This record gives sequence, structure tokens and C-alpha cells, in this order.
Amino acid sequence: MVNLEEEMKRVKIDVDRLILDEILPKSSRINEIDLLYGMMRDYPSRPAKGLRPFLCVTACKAAGGKGEDALLTAACVELFQHWILIHDDIEDGSELRRGQPALHLKQSPALALNTGDALHAKMWGALLKNESRLGQERTLRILAEFSRIVDATTEGQHMELAWVQHRRWDLGEPDYYEMCSRKTSWYTVAGPCRLGAIVADANLDVQDKLKEFGTKLGVGFQIQDDLLNLVGDQSRYGKAKFDDILEGKRTLILLHLLEILSSSERSKVVSIMNKDRDQKTSEDVSYVLSLMKRNDAFGYSRNRAQELVEEAIGVLRRIEWKGESEAVSLLESFSRFAVERQW
Amino acid sequence: MVNLEEEMKRVKIDVDRLILDEILPKSSRINEIDLLYGMMRDYPSRPAKGLRPFLCVTACKAAGGKGEDALLTAACVELFQHWILIHDDIEDGSELRRGQPALHLKQSPALALNTGDALHAKMWGALLKNESRLGQERTLRILAEFSRIVDATTEGQHMELAWVQHRRWDLGEPDYYEMCSRKTSWYTVAGPCRLGAIVADANLDVQDKLKEFGTKLGVGFQIQDDLLNLVGDQSRYGKAKFDDILEGKRTLILLHLLEILSSSERSKVVSIMNKDRDQKTSEDVSYVLSLMKRNDAFGYSRNRAQELVEEAIGVLRRIEWKGESEAVSLLESFSRFAVERQW
Repeated sequence: MVNLEEEMKRVKIDVDRLILDEILPKSSRINEIDLLYGMMRDYPSRPAKGLRPFLCVTACKAAGGKGEDALLTAACVELFQHWILIHDDIEDGSELRRGQPALHLKQSPALALNTGDALHAKMWGALLKNESRLGQERTLRILAEFSRIVDATTEGQHMELAWVQHRRWDLGEPDYYEMCSRKTSWYTVAGPCRLGAIVADANLDVQDKLKEFGTKLGVGFQIQDDLLNLVGDQSRYGKAKFDDILEGKRTLILLHLLEILSSSERSKVVSIMNKDRDQKTSEDVSYVLSLMKRNDAFGYSRNRAQELVEEAIGVLRRIEWKGESEAVSLLESFSRFAVERQW
Repeated sequence: MVNLEEEMKRVKIDVDRLILDEILPKSSRINEIDLLYGMMRDYPSRPAKGLRPFLCVTACKAAGGKGEDALLTAACVELFQHWILIHDDIEDGSELRRGQPALHLKQSPALALNTGDALHAKMWGALLKNESRLGQERTLRILAEFSRIVDATTEGQHMELAWVQHRRWDLGEPDYYEMCSRKTSWYTVAGPCRLGAIVADANLDVQDKLKEFGTKLGVGFQIQDDLLNLVGDQSRYGKAKFDDILEGKRTLILLHLLEILSSSERSKVVSIMNKDRDQKTSEDVSYVLSLMKRNDAFGYSRNRAQELVEEAIGVLRRIEWKGESEAVSLLESFSRFAVERQW
């Protein structure tokens, strides 16, 4: 029985080698461009879990393909995560990423924004190198899937940012699922798994079920991410704790809390959450946290994440896999890990 | 004899129809996503010259291809311009674009940044639709050329931004050419022309010469753009006048001026240019402008642009064209227009 964490590490090492040794440029005779290349290598050089490339390679093997055929695509899935995090950190005003200052704080927002664009383009450029191993047709199908993934992710990101900017609170659980299924599910689970299945040349039924599996698991994954931001162990988590409250994020935890609070408590929480980031005091944060704790909004959200994972695993079990059974069980182990992880 | 401006308008109409009616999404049942779609359609709906799609279609015809075969690629060249301008305006803190407030001022920098990413992805997604008309092989070659174009553009953009941020003044004309040939030439001239030639299936020699032509003309084009920012007619130009001085841009005009100034004047200009945008007074701007005028830095730069265009046209004439002679002469007319235009 292959160990999940071991296997994730193994894929991550292969993918990082590809990204750092082959895809990203190393040095330039022009000083300033050398700095750009260094900035492009910054997030890819920080420690990360590598969940998404693992899913891509493992889904490929489960669907009957060879893991090494999916490696370049998996590396591009990881590159996607790198460039979008650079932009995400600027958009959210985040200060910490993977235990270090966010890129825009190391240099400037302008240079970091442009670095994100440069990395974004490298992702598309690298995907073209699939041609020699997979042929033109599959290379183009993989590109089309990436196009779907970026479309969904930017839509979800827009929803979340616009809710905060427009001070919208007429939102419930279904809105959260709509947003997360775009912002997180596609690029975290559905996309990577479907890409692996394309490499393995799996049929449309497998693709459809992986979309359903990925949507559910992705939302569960995001709920756990939101929980870690509020109740996780900072040293393992890598992002600044309570950022979601400071940034005014509409997490399931918060939306559920607002549904069950008295109207006076609700007004107070909303007025705190509507403040700009730098106007929120530590008392504000503690007040919101104490209500979440007293009303067990954490437990409620944890249960919803668990339910989503059970549904996701149900879908996974209905897929007619043609590949390694070991890979199939890794996907199931990963599903549980996604909502039980502490990092 | 086809009129240049007429032909540019004709291509622009076709390309805009493709972008607005077929490539960009129109509406969503989700309010917030509807806003995103509106933001994606904002810059594409503002008046623009459409130089780049014109070059793509015209180079295709000159190289023996059919103009309509290049239309989708030309639309994607225009989409490139749209998304990179959104990001560029954020990076430079620009306030005006095509006569209206920059997108990040209409909504927020966060939403505008994400909109740029969404448009960027639409560019790659739309390029995949070339397959039905051009086949897999040419579709992939076109994608590879786009990858080169974005690489060069982000490198040039980084050089320019980093020079300002790091207060670098140990720069001369060759540095300006290095920067411009990346920032402007590839996406404005070399890229669009080479893409047209790929659609026409032109040989490598044509591609190489178009790279040389485009590099030279692109720098000439940028010099004229810099001149228009300082001495152009604001109502026709569409961007905020003197922005280049406010943003501390190292234009050829400025770098040449610094070379010929006395050391005390030079120090004063450098200390003005080193100020942050909002610290620069109108007297500062007038002082720099008066020195440029007195030392004829405008005339010097205009001459350099003229020389570059003559060299570019020399390259153009050495190409063994296989297509319409009318298209070839349009490319030559365009070259002169690029450095003589007042808008």
C-alpha cells in the first residue's frame, strides 16, 4: 500500500525539477531581467504541498495512463497555482505566503503583477511541449481544459472580491458553493484530475464524473482551508492567521454564523466585517471568533466538508477505472486527507 | 491603391465583431459574474486604432495567405493589447485610457487585475479555435509565437518598471533599444506580422526578416508614442499628457537629454524624475519639458525614429513576398504612418 504523503512528495519533487530546471529561465545577461527571472522562481522555490500535480499524475494512472506522461501537465498545474497566488496576494493584500512575505511586499505590487503575467505565459508555453510525447490532438485537448480552468477560477475569484467590495451580505450557503466551485474546485481538483484523464485518453463518462467528484471535493477542500485559517496551527499552515476575517471573506463558517445569530449580533458582525482591513482591531477579530466558537460554526462547517467528501467518494467509486487500483485508492485517501489535513 | 486608414478600419471592425460577439461572454445569471463580463468588455469597447490586427491580416496577405484565415489570430492580438493595458495601467498608476478612466479606477485595482487575467485566458482559449480552419499543426505554431510574444513583452515591461523603481540612471540609448525591442516591438509589430506569416505558411526566411523588420519598426513606433505623450494633441491621443514624466519613464527623449545636459541641469532633472508621481509639481514637469525643447531632444528622437523606419523598410523590401503586392505596399505605408501619426 503506497503511502499518500510519500507519493505526494515524490510527484512534487519531479514536478519541481521540471519547473525549476527546464521550464523557467535561469539567468540573463541583462541585470533587470535577471531580477525578473528570480521573482518568477520565488513562489516555485517555497515549500508547498503539491496536491494538484499529485492529483493529475494519480488520476492519469487510475485511468490507465502512464504517470510520466502526465508530468509536464502536472508541472503546469503547479505553475498555475504559482502565478495565480502572486496575483491573489496582491488582490487580497495578503502579507504572508508559505511562511514568507508575499512577493508584492518583497519588491513592489507593479513588479509582482508583471511577474505573475510572465509566469502565466510560461504555463501556456510549457504546455505546448506536450506535443512531442502526446501528439497534437491531446496537446490541444489539454490546452482547452486549461482554458476552462482559468475561466472558472477568475469567475470565482471575481465573485469573492466583488462580494467584499460591494458589501454584499444577502448570501447563503448556495452562494458559497457557487463561488467555491469556481474559485477552488476547478483548479484544485476537477481540473487536475480531468487533465490526468485526458493524458490517459479516458472516455467522456470518466471526464464527467471527475468534474462532479472535483466540484464536491474542491468545496470540501476550501471549507477545510477556511477552518485552518481560523483554528489551524499557524506554524504548519503558512498563511497569516485570521486573514479571512481581516479580508472580509464570505466563508461558509461566517455565512452559517450569520444565519443563526440574533439580529443585533448579526448587525455587529456585519459592521465589523464591512470595515477595511486596516480598520479592524484585534478585539473585532476576537469578537467574531468567539461567536463562531459559541455557536459551533466550526463544527457545522466541518460536518458539511465531511458530507461533501463522502458524496465525492461516492462518485469516485462509480467510475469505471481502467488503470492501477493502487492509484484509485490513493485518490480516495487523498479525498479524506483534503478535509482532515492540518496544513 | 487601397487607403491605409480605410483598411485599418475595415480590419478593426471585423476583429471587434469577433471579440465582442463570439469570443467574450455576454451575460451570466449570476450578478457578480455579469459585472466581470462587463469589465472584460470595457477596454475592447473603447475606440482604438487596431494597428496590430491590421498588421497580422496584411502580413498574411502579403505572404500569400487569405486575410480571413488570419482574422481570429488578429482578434487575439487585439485581445492581448486589451489585457496587458489593464495590467499596465495598474502598474503605472495611469488614470486615463482611450479617453476614459482606467479600468482600475472605475472599479478597484483588485477587480481590474483579475479581469486582466480573465481576458488573458480568453486569448489563449480563442486561439484554440484556429484548429477548425488552420489544422492542428499551424494552431500550435501560432500558440508558440504568442508564447514568445508574451515572454518578450513581460521582460520589457519589467525592465522599464525596475529602472524606475531602482532609480537607475546609468542608462543610454542601447538600453532603451533593449527595453523597447522587448516591451513594444514584439507585440506591436514583429509578433503580429510573424503570426500573419505563419497563417500564410511562409518560410523561415520570411519569419526571420519580419522579426528584424518588427524590432526596428516597433522601437520607432514607441519613440513616436513617447513624443505624442509630450508634444501630441491630447484630444486625439487618448492618454493623459506628460504621464511619462510623472511615471519617471526612461524615454529616448529623456535619455538623450541627460546625455547632453550640463551636470547641474542633469542632477536637477534626475532629482525631479526620481520623485514619486504625486510629488511631482507642474513646475517640475514644465522645467523638464523646457529643457527638452531648448536642447531639441524631440527633434533628435524624431530623427532616430525616422532612421529606424528607413532601416525597417529596407528589410521589408528584401523579403521575397508571395502574395498581394497591394498588401506589401500597405505594410510600407504603415511603417511611415507608425512614426508620423498624430494619434
